[in-house]
Amino acid sequence: MSWIGIDLGGTKIYAVVFDGNGVLAEAKSKTPTQGGPLAVVDAMAAVVRALGPVEDVAGIGVGAPGVIDPVEGTVRQAPNLPGWMEPFGVAEALSAALDGLPVAVDNDVNVGTLAEHRLGAGKGADNLLGVFAGTGIGAGVVLDGVLRHGPTGAAGEIGHMIVRRGGRLCGCGGRGHLEAYAGRAAMERRARDLERKGRDTVLVDLAPGRRMTSGVFVKALAAGDAVAIELIDDAVGALGVAIASATSLLDVPLVIVGGGLADRLGLSFVQRVEQACRADVFPRNPELRIVPASLGDRGGSIGAALMAADRIGVAAEKKVVR
Amino acid sequence: MSWIGIDLGGTKIYAVVFDGNGVLAEAKSKTPTQGGPLAVVDAMAAVVRALGPVEDVAGIGVGAPGVIDPVEGTVRQAPNLPGWMEPFGVAEALSAALDGLPVAVDNDVNVGTLAEHRLGAGKGADNLLGVFAGTGIGAGVVLDGVLRHGPTGAAGEIGHMIVRRGGRLCGCGGRGHLEAYAGRAAMERRARDLERKGRDTVLVDLAPGRRMTSGVFVKALAAGDAVAIELIDDAVGALGVAIASATSLLDVPLVIVGGGLADRLGLSFVQRVEQACRADVFPRNPELRIVPASLGDRGGSIGAALMAADRIGVAAEKKVVR
Repeated sequence: MSWIGIDLGGTKIYAVVFDGNGVLAEAKSKTPTQGGPLAVVDAMAAVVRALGPVEDVAGIGVGAPGVIDPVEGTVRQAPNLPGWMEPFGVAEALSAALDGLPVAVDNDVNVGTLAEHRLGAGKGADNLLGVFAGTGIGAGVVLDGVLRHGPTGAAGEIGHMIVRRGGRLCGCGGRGHLEAYAGRAAMERRARDLERKGRDTVLVDLAPGRRMTSGVFVKALAAGDAVAIELIDDAVGALGVAIASATSLLDVPLVIVGGGLADRLGLSFVQRVEQACRADVFPRNPELRIVPASLGDRGGSIGAALMAADRIGVAAEKKVVR
Repeated sequence: MSWIGIDLGGTKIYAVVFDGNGVLAEAKSKTPTQGGPLAVVDAMAAVVRALGPVEDVAGIGVGAPGVIDPVEGTVRQAPNLPGWMEPFGVAEALSAALDGLPVAVDNDVNVGTLAEHRLGAGKGADNLLGVFAGTGIGAGVVLDGVLRHGPTGAAGEIGHMIVRRGGRLCGCGGRGHLEAYAGRAAMERRARDLERKGRDTVLVDLAPGRRMTSGVFVKALAAGDAVAIELIDDAVGALGVAIASATSLLDVPLVIVGGGLADRLGLSFVQRVEQACRADVFPRNPELRIVPASLGDRGGSIGAALMAADRIGVAAEKKVVR
């Protein structure tokens, strides 16, 4: 029996076939920028077909950005998916597009954390946070072996923990949130702001009319760009504060840091976050370890497959071959 | 069948007999300031005997300050209990002093939260934080109906969440922790510091050679004392930040605020904390409610009895009469 996992991102759709032991096949495409949810569902179905004929598929899992209703399989809000303003029943629509194959949906960060917990840097740990720093910042919270969703499905919003009261404006309208300091989108806004105010930075030169990717930050850092250094320093400090607070509250001994920015900046970035955190953490938690995610780009889709296996699992009666 | 619950505080020992419906009897005494753990155990046994003859007691629960090992029934550290520097097996010693009656031990804040969850302001809520602001600040974390202890038993240390990076020194050695702004002991240190530096305040006049109690803060506030106003403002702001962060991370829609300081300052204090929190909280949590604890002084001992019933429960074979 195998499962298909789809990582639905703001820029790409990444699908794998996973049989519990490893990845049997994978396929990718760009996320459509027009056409809203229906176009996205069509693109996901096309990526699944591009996996080639797959035997014994029991179901599909989708990890999607935004606020998810995992019971209904609905993406309620997805600010990072173009044209996705209203709640949309992804599970139902994708299932209909794929001969009724069962589909389960969860948050992208939750499934990424599930993958690290079962197969990655968190293997064997019953209590951990998976912190993913990309365009925004989110966390998956695993407590006593169970991923917490919370009554509204919004558990893990570490990006909206407050690291500086009254500080920088966050995309959500709040102030001083972690995401306003360590989310790629906020860092880009800040870099462009500083440049407009007369600071000299290669960040804007490297991303003139387009998105300031994590790769751009890595290049600017390597070039010794003062603004890039300052922004990364702020991000490290903010991540340290939020992680210290979260682990003090929850008594969680392991934090896994992943996502585009962390993956690109590498081990030294995660080690700096650990140092910043140790400076602030409650001394009673000397066992705390902060480590990089180990599954990289494929973590999300593998986690989506694992989530589907959990969710659909024994309920799956039909095995579909395409 | 009934249960005895003991709230072991830094200044007093408060015991109740609880039968699942209500409190049948209660007794109090001062916590001994000399003699260490053995004297405290003797005093607890004396308070239990002072409850009078009790029929059908199935066991005793103790809520104790500090770091607890609930499995071993050991108080590992208790900075607020005089002479309690080493781990001490409270469950074993108290049981031996009371004819082998089974004894279970947990953290005072955890049992206080349990009582509010089952019988107080959190009745019917599956997800809540119980935040207790007294000498220090701690929280009980109830997630999906279960009180979280965490792998080292230290879950709920909201007092050591960071509300201002690099801020005031906390008793634990960290900086900018909630407890350094909103814990009574830290507020007292700050008031005496400010007075030494030339600020005029009735706080020190009201507590010249003795502890600056929560009641002293209430009196100074009523007198319009500028230092008291400033300290309470700081406490409110710090509680707002920590609670906003905790609820964003955990998707918890209810926060119960209790403890000496909150109980004395009353509803208006809790409402101010709610306002401060709303200013900072992630907008996706519009349902968040922050309410005062409703069981007051007796919450800890009732919670200790509830905890004993959970823990010892069906395992209790003998019913002891004294």
